[in-house]
Amino acid sequence: MVGLADLNGDEITELLDRAVEFRRLADERALPSPLAGATVGNLFFENSTRTRNSFRLAAKRLGAETVEFTEVGSSVAKGETVADTVRTIEALGVDLMVIRHGSPGVPHRLREFVTSGLLNAGDGTHEHPTQALIDLLSLRDAFSQEGTGESLAGKTVTVVGDILHSRVARSNIHGLRALGARVLVCGPSTLLPRQLPGAEFFTDLDAALAQSDAVNLLRVQFERQRGAFFPSPAEYYRLFGMTQTRLTRSGRDPWVLAPGPINRGIELSSEVADGPRSLILKQVANGVFIRMACLATLMEARR
Amino acid sequence: MVGLADLNGDEITELLDRAVEFRRLADERALPSPLAGATVGNLFFENSTRTRNSFRLAAKRLGAETVEFTEVGSSVAKGETVADTVRTIEALGVDLMVIRHGSPGVPHRLREFVTSGLLNAGDGTHEHPTQALIDLLSLRDAFSQEGTGESLAGKTVTVVGDILHSRVARSNIHGLRALGARVLVCGPSTLLPRQLPGAEFFTDLDAALAQSDAVNLLRVQFERQRGAFFPSPAEYYRLFGMTQTRLTRSGRDPWVLAPGPINRGIELSSEVADGPRSLILKQVANGVFIRMACLATLMEARR
Amino acid sequence: MVGLADLNGDEITELLDRAVEFRRLADERALPSPLAGATVGNLFFENSTRTRNSFRLAAKRLGAETVEFTEVGSSVAKGETVADTVRTIEALGVDLMVIRHGSPGVPHRLREFVTSGLLNAGDGTHEHPTQALIDLLSLRDAFSQEGTGESLAGKTVTVVGDILHSRVARSNIHGLRALGARVLVCGPSTLLPRQLPGAEFFTDLDAALAQSDAVNLLRVQFERQRGAFFPSPAEYYRLFGMTQTRLTRSGRDPWVLAPGPINRGIELSSEVADGPRSLILKQVANGVFIRMACLATLMEARR
Repeated sequence: MVGLADLNGDEITELLDRAVEFRRLADERALPSPLAGATVGNLFFENSTRTRNSFRLAAKRLGAETVEFTEVGSSVAKGETVADTVRTIEALGVDLMVIRHGSPGVPHRLREFVTSGLLNAGDGTHEHPTQALIDLLSLRDAFSQEGTGESLAGKTVTVVGDILHSRVARSNIHGLRALGARVLVCGPSTLLPRQLPGAEFFTDLDAALAQSDAVNLLRVQFERQRGAFFPSPAEYYRLFGMTQTRLTRSGRDPWVLAPGPINRGIELSSEVADGPRSLILKQVANGVFIRMACLATLMEARR
Repeated sequence: MVGLADLNGDEITELLDRAVEFRRLADERALPSPLAGATVGNLFFENSTRTRNSFRLAAKRLGAETVEFTEVGSSVAKGETVADTVRTIEALGVDLMVIRHGSPGVPHRLREFVTSGLLNAGDGTHEHPTQALIDLLSLRDAFSQEGTGESLAGKTVTVVGDILHSRVARSNIHGLRALGARVLVCGPSTLLPRQLPGAEFFTDLDAALAQSDAVNLLRVQFERQRGAFFPSPAEYYRLFGMTQTRLTRSGRDPWVLAPGPINRGIELSSEVADGPRSLILKQVANGVFIRMACLATLMEARR
Repeated sequence: MVGLADLNGDEITELLDRAVEFRRLADERALPSPLAGATVGNLFFENSTRTRNSFRLAAKRLGAETVEFTEVGSSVAKGETVADTVRTIEALGVDLMVIRHGSPGVPHRLREFVTSGLLNAGDGTHEHPTQALIDLLSLRDAFSQEGTGESLAGKTVTVVGDILHSRVARSNIHGLRALGARVLVCGPSTLLPRQLPGAEFFTDLDAALAQSDAVNLLRVQFERQRGAFFPSPAEYYRLFGMTQTRLTRSGRDPWVLAPGPINRGIELSSEVADGPRSLILKQVANGVFIRMACLATLMEARR
């Protein structure tokens, strides 16, 4: 699975249901081994300890062996193309490959070169499909627990922050729309794209919050940002940081998602991060099960 | 287990006995899998290939899956607190966590944030409980082999070197005292603390050796030392280095421990390191079994 | 196994046959676990993601646990000798050790210090025995598929490139000769040794090709080369790069091996690398099975 844009609502729901089933089996310490005898390549051309560990653990718990590959920086500099690196790892006997790469479209393009099942773990500013599935499942859990039913249809979710550069935003918007939710995006006007089909634009967070059942707070990526898109972290926090005051003022008590790692005092206050509406740690826990569902589904498609 | 100071003599003896039992079963290639289905997080905020491998191997051999995390330098610099990192890893589905951190007290403090079982793999200059257990077991094996019984009661052990900054020294002294041994500490006066309950101070190694059944040679950590605590490595070796001449001169033939990695020609001569009284490689072998005992005990406490 | 020079033709053939057997069982998803309960140390004092992964995967698929160790640069700088590092890792309970080191003869010398089975994964410019076995098996497969029988006896193989510094060349020449092949070496005269028993020297690639059933294209190691052994990559490509024109001109359609990672446009053109005579990805796939054969054979020798 290279992008969430390839999947319709039914296919997304099937993956979420499957993740819930793996979660139930894990709780009962009765996980099956649908990947026994299979090898999963974990190829990170851009590093991420937490996402890598989540995929690795999902693969191992379902019985697979893993091959880890990290290439920070360009492999072209060492004289090997990305396609050659990936084909070489496939030749080791890999059945499924998880790929993260800094350039948009790389996993898509690699489909011409390999026959293994491909799972996109984030490609530049393009897509991050498993993160979106995690967010959808965490929202479904939360709404269901609230007694309003697990359906996302008719709910309003606001994605906050650097919409322009975020693959999480892009995949989320597609997934939320496919499940019938209304999507608002809100951030500094310098970090909003010119257009984004399916999303309504806000630059005033309080106005967006007044209509939201949930908010998804994108990470401010100081390590990536080159330009000066906003004056300072303090300025960002004042305008777009989620505080308890702001949540209460909205009169709607929305659920709070954040793909992390979070910056306390920038995207949100500690009170919100550790508060009763925060789904942050539940997102991490769901991550392993979403990845199990994707790996198992991809493996079946190959057999 | 966060520190050896939490355990009394009986509890320490129980862990040593359990390690011996795992060692016997490993020799018979009949190790059980008390950690089957469990996940152990191996969190090293300060790197150590050998300690990390020892814990990982202990966990895997008892049937666990592991999650590896290395963060050299401050994670606060990347905007995430240590508590958030640890809670995120726990949320992946981790049951037990092994934690090494450069600051004293971190594992202790993390108990407020996580519900997983915590095992301290070294916290700054504070404690390194599994290393102390390894040293105790290696001494018990040696005394037992000598025919004087495995008890440490009444034996005299000298810890040599940088007592001031050593977590190994601190954990060792507690463990040795709890099992009834007399403890001497010996090193340059600049590297001795002002006071250390339970230990007798020496600056003359020969005087300490004349009363010792065993010596534990702390590693000179050139990579950490900032000040000038002793004039030169040669000077250190002349005053505190263990040589065969010095061992013979003591008239007691003491057992030699060293937590390693050793510096030949600084803490000890090659003749001593490779000699019949050296327990260095036995300490490494016991390390895996001590860690098995700690992990299995911690897992039972959680169930 | 420290070098291919230790093995005669029958012993080499036995390893190749065993690899083929593991390959057949893997295809049937019926691999046995001859290394169950064993621990394999993967010690790379010089880094190589692909070779390390190949050994690790071979060990894991046969049921072993692995201990990974990477020490780039000199461990002596940290005060520990290579022998101490290796003995410490062995003491963790390791049964077999895979060792790559930048200095020729290190695995050979380590035999004095450890009792584990040792497998050389490349020692400086000396030997790289498993790569040679991979090349032999890939050639045997290719000749067999061609219908000329799998025997290498009477075949002519040309090794092209930096013969002077290549451990792959050295191991290949021994293996090819042991199985009855004729060996030509071809490269810039600055990169040919003064003498090389068993090989015939060429500096004109077309002359060598006119007599060859296969060519083995050594990697140009820009990262290692200190002197100026040839004017420029373009010059190298013009004289020694394998192109389709050159292959066709030879009138022999030789098989093409390359131990990789390949530099497209330097050792060979993309057309050749991806062409029907290229064995490059088959070499990678055979790598895992050759390593399985070596590990299993070494383990039996120990029991």
